[in-house]
Amino acid sequence: MKSYRKELWFEIPKRRGFVNITQTLEQCVRESGIKEGLLLCNAMHITASVFINDDESGLHHDFEVWLEKLAPEKPYSQYKHNGFEDNADAHLKRTIMGREVVVAITNGKLDLGPWEQIFYGEFDGMRKKRVLVKIIGE
Amino acid sequence: MKSYRKELWFEIPKRRGFVNITQTLEQCVRESGIKEGLLLCNAMHITASVFINDDESGLHHDFEVWLEKLAPEKPYSQYKHNGFEDNADAHLKRTIMGREVVVAITNGKLDLGPWEQIFYGEFDGMRKKRVLVKIIGE
Amino acid sequence: MKSYRKELWFEIPKRRGFVNITQTLEQCVRESGIKEGLLLCNAMHITASVFINDDESGLHHDFEVWLEKLAPEKPYSQYKHNGFEDNADAHLKRTIMGREVVVAITNGKLDLGPWEQIFYGEFDGMRKKRVLVKIIGE
Repeated sequence: MKSYRKELWFEIPKRRGFVNITQTLEQCVRESGIKEGLLLCNAMHITASVFINDDESGLHHDFEVWLEKLAPEKPYSQYKHNGFEDNADAHLKRTIMGREVVVAITNGKLDLGPWEQIFYGEFDGMRKKRVLVKIIGE
Repeated sequence: MKSYRKELWFEIPKRRGFVNITQTLEQCVRESGIKEGLLLCNAMHITASVFINDDESGLHHDFEVWLEKLAPEKPYSQYKHNGFEDNADAHLKRTIMGREVVVAITNGKLDLGPWEQIFYGEFDGMRKKRVLVKIIGE
Repeated sequence: MKSYRKELWFEIPKRRGFVNITQTLEQCVRESGIKEGLLLCNAMHITASVFINDDESGLHHDFEVWLEKLAPEKPYSQYKHNGFEDNADAHLKRTIMGREVVVAITNGKLDLGPWEQIFYGEFDGMRKKRVLVKIIGE
């Protein structure tokens, strides 16, 4: 069994934003030399997400509006977590979107459906944050 | 290390519906010959889900009502994604329900709790869609 | 390839509660002898969750309030599942929080970000319930 590990770094210039990381992860699979296995990709921070959905700007706008409806950023005082911080909503939004994805690797490639794209989702940006890529297989 | 891959096909005759795929996945585990490992099962489409919950029709009705409350289908015009499509709500509903499950395989069987059943969740049906099954182990 | 399996038992004295299981899972990794691989940790019950977030009591209070807003426990009669049971809300809350986490193992340790802590989330307690830990790797 082979294993591979890499950290990806992000610094999103706004509080919230999505970055398509599919090509970066394809490159990780190539670097790993693994032909059959599983890839785990997870946010290493608890106010960020890795998720799979469509790379379509209208949908990304809909996600922003929807997450603000389900877990509004303001007023900050509505959350007990916001004593010294203001990011409680980011913890909740990331819970909806998910921490991680697990993707099959087949014939040395990410085994994705036709519209599946992998995103880093930032909900408390303007700081450096990491994503972990771990691949096991042969 | 062994690996196994299979695609399952679905064509749900309504916009939304759940299908219990637990027995199909047990059959995949038998076909794989893998005794100890991990099974990944994920929707290959971004308006569908694979999730684990109870096979109880009242609960499935509750999921339908609840998802419609959290991410209503209509009016279609409330979503920017719905320029040429009408399925933005399906992307949001699938986000709540999740893309994938990872299940342990022990002694050649799915290692599930007493009430755990695995479902395909369709949120934009009336078309052919695929689910990926990938198993690795020994 | 090595594999490891363990069940963890919980009996939460209230309907809802979170338990930090990070140190228990670190112990599982040590027991497994696996240095590089993947750890799956999942609730074996469909009204409980395993999730990763911050170990901060204000945030845990915020989760309780937020989950009650998104999927209220009462009135019990709002859910069809509640014919012989009263826990439909617990099935929905666990859906939001997630069934499972997959964590990388690197150099014989859980490969977590600085604030990542792993929790058992109970939404229908006052009874014995199990969590499955499965590790594969080398």
